[in-house]
Amino acid sequence: MPVEGSCLDPAIPVLNKIRVTENIHIGRNVLPQLKAVLQNLAFSKVAVLVDENTLHHCYPQVKPYLPAHDIIQIQSGEAHKTLQTCEYIWQRMTELNLDRWSVLVNLGGGVIGDMGGFCAATFKRGLYFVQVPTTLLAQVDASVGGKTGIDFHGLKNHIGVYKEPKAVIIDPGFLSTLPQRQLKSGYAEIIKHWLIADAAAFEEQRHIGLFTEDWDALIRHSVGIKSAVVEADPLEGGYRKVLNFGHTVGHAVESYLMEQPGRELLHGEAIAVGMLCEAYLSVKKELLTRRELDQIETFLVSIYEKVKLTEEDIQSMAKLALQDKKNTHTTINCTLLQGIGKAVWDQPVTLAEIQEALRYYQLL
Amino acid sequence: MPVEGSCLDPAIPVLNKIRVTENIHIGRNVLPQLKAVLQNLAFSKVAVLVDENTLHHCYPQVKPYLPAHDIIQIQSGEAHKTLQTCEYIWQRMTELNLDRWSVLVNLGGGVIGDMGGFCAATFKRGLYFVQVPTTLLAQVDASVGGKTGIDFHGLKNHIGVYKEPKAVIIDPGFLSTLPQRQLKSGYAEIIKHWLIADAAAFEEQRHIGLFTEDWDALIRHSVGIKSAVVEADPLEGGYRKVLNFGHTVGHAVESYLMEQPGRELLHGEAIAVGMLCEAYLSVKKELLTRRELDQIETFLVSIYEKVKLTEEDIQSMAKLALQDKKNTHTTINCTLLQGIGKAVWDQPVTLAEIQEALRYYQLL
Repeated sequence: MPVEGSCLDPAIPVLNKIRVTENIHIGRNVLPQLKAVLQNLAFSKVAVLVDENTLHHCYPQVKPYLPAHDIIQIQSGEAHKTLQTCEYIWQRMTELNLDRWSVLVNLGGGVIGDMGGFCAATFKRGLYFVQVPTTLLAQVDASVGGKTGIDFHGLKNHIGVYKEPKAVIIDPGFLSTLPQRQLKSGYAEIIKHWLIADAAAFEEQRHIGLFTEDWDALIRHSVGIKSAVVEADPLEGGYRKVLNFGHTVGHAVESYLMEQPGRELLHGEAIAVGMLCEAYLSVKKELLTRRELDQIETFLVSIYEKVKLTEEDIQSMAKLALQDKKNTHTTINCTLLQGIGKAVWDQPVTLAEIQEALRYYQLL
Repeated sequence: MPVEGSCLDPAIPVLNKIRVTENIHIGRNVLPQLKAVLQNLAFSKVAVLVDENTLHHCYPQVKPYLPAHDIIQIQSGEAHKTLQTCEYIWQRMTELNLDRWSVLVNLGGGVIGDMGGFCAATFKRGLYFVQVPTTLLAQVDASVGGKTGIDFHGLKNHIGVYKEPKAVIIDPGFLSTLPQRQLKSGYAEIIKHWLIADAAAFEEQRHIGLFTEDWDALIRHSVGIKSAVVEADPLEGGYRKVLNFGHTVGHAVESYLMEQPGRELLHGEAIAVGMLCEAYLSVKKELLTRRELDQIETFLVSIYEKVKLTEEDIQSMAKLALQDKKNTHTTINCTLLQGIGKAVWDQPVTLAEIQEALRYYQLL
């Protein structure tokens, strides 16, 4: 797999070096570094945010490397990524007398990382936090890039701030306890990173098929792409928007189905739908060839089960896409592919086109 | 009044230039600048956050300089500086389809500015906001320095972030509709600025007595001190803590009495109590002379009505001071005066000493 990627138009900031930033530690034997990381912060107190799953499966592996600490436990699942849960976390932080020199260790998937990061960033105007992502999705996406937040009235990550964790500790060993469905969800973001920044890696991987056994290398490469993009544009002034490929439609699909009991999708599953729709739109805008779309389609369909959509679903999802954070005024701004391995952002798309793309997906 | 102040120990960052930063506009004829400020932001939409008082007294004066906009109205008063009100504001921002290029204009006192700033900083991970402070307190203190936040379970500004507004528009003309009690409250922060950074100004003003007619000059000088301190240390790593003089005890007094119907104090009234107590502690720690304490005492007592405290009040207030954001671990860290015109921070103080200081105040 190439470690250098340079498939972007010179007119936009060049991703000339795929590299993992210094505060991110990746590997099978990386948990002991937590001890040194915390010591370097000269912390006053440590609290660990967990849910019932990570308390059971992951906490025992992390505990040996933690100093004296308290535990804050919340319920797992996107449905709990709310202001109400934040209120509970802030309340517990208050009871534990955490101060500005305390550290919150977020041990879990994207929900724990995003919400724990937001609570840490806003408690007494900000205390330290360290991400220990335990799902593939959180390891290759949520834990990197400083986006924190919660859902609000059904809108994904509607309330939040940009704040970098003091460190990210990524142990692929956690993936061994992860259900297959969760692995596939995280894999969608890995595929996205190839599609937006590394055509060679996509070409190599689409022939290997579903999974690798070498998660370490896959994660390192994927985090490297995301780190490099974020470093070039931390606050999403422009270039960082390449990471939104698949997310305009994907978020709408995810938000809509979240409210439909029994139809909820995992984030990556929704992003897979979104990537197919937005690759379709890329062809429609003559940015991507039909042949490239076919490659993407074949690869994604081999991994992700088809989501059944009614015409009513499609109408509602398209409307939700209008509310997306990435939009200006009343245009829907989409990140599209200009060939595999290169993304262009702020591409105006109409409500009707979003519907058309979802209908294309429905007919796959 | 001296415009340059240099009364700080060279060992700590020198406040060698009292100056107002560029994004702050002060004067009787400054409201029209709002128009240009907004135009420069290339905004998508504008919303104005008001309460029933500022809607009635201030909005009519601002309206001519606003483009098409929506109004978000909340109830006035510190009791509404809560998560619940934030939820309402975020909901309204969502309904109004504000996006990342929208501007929230916070028209009001400290509550509107702090809470509106927090809501703007966290909505879709941050949109622009402009402060138009309408009370003396907000003009010389809250609107400058990038602190945003809300109260949480009775704890002052417990949840918040640092985020600078795009501009601050300070029109002393608003003060003409302000009750005397509110004016005095803001005046406490002006006095604090003299005490921590400008002995000459304090010396001059304490002979003039209560109020000046030249609010413009007073405000400009006071904002100049605060701007210079904040510029030297935006995130309160150290030096900025000089601004906390009076606030360790003051916040405890304010928080405690907020829960006692009929005994609530305005912020500056509580800070006046805090400054007296902390000036007393400064003498106790041999940082301030008894003569200097007398000067401060005479001046403050001539302006602020004595607050009656029982022994039970004192015990509870001292305990609350332990929960203050400024503390590390279990020490109470106080900013004290090392002579008039100079402050030193992170001075350890015990619970018993806080009680002693409050008893000194009680016996005045």
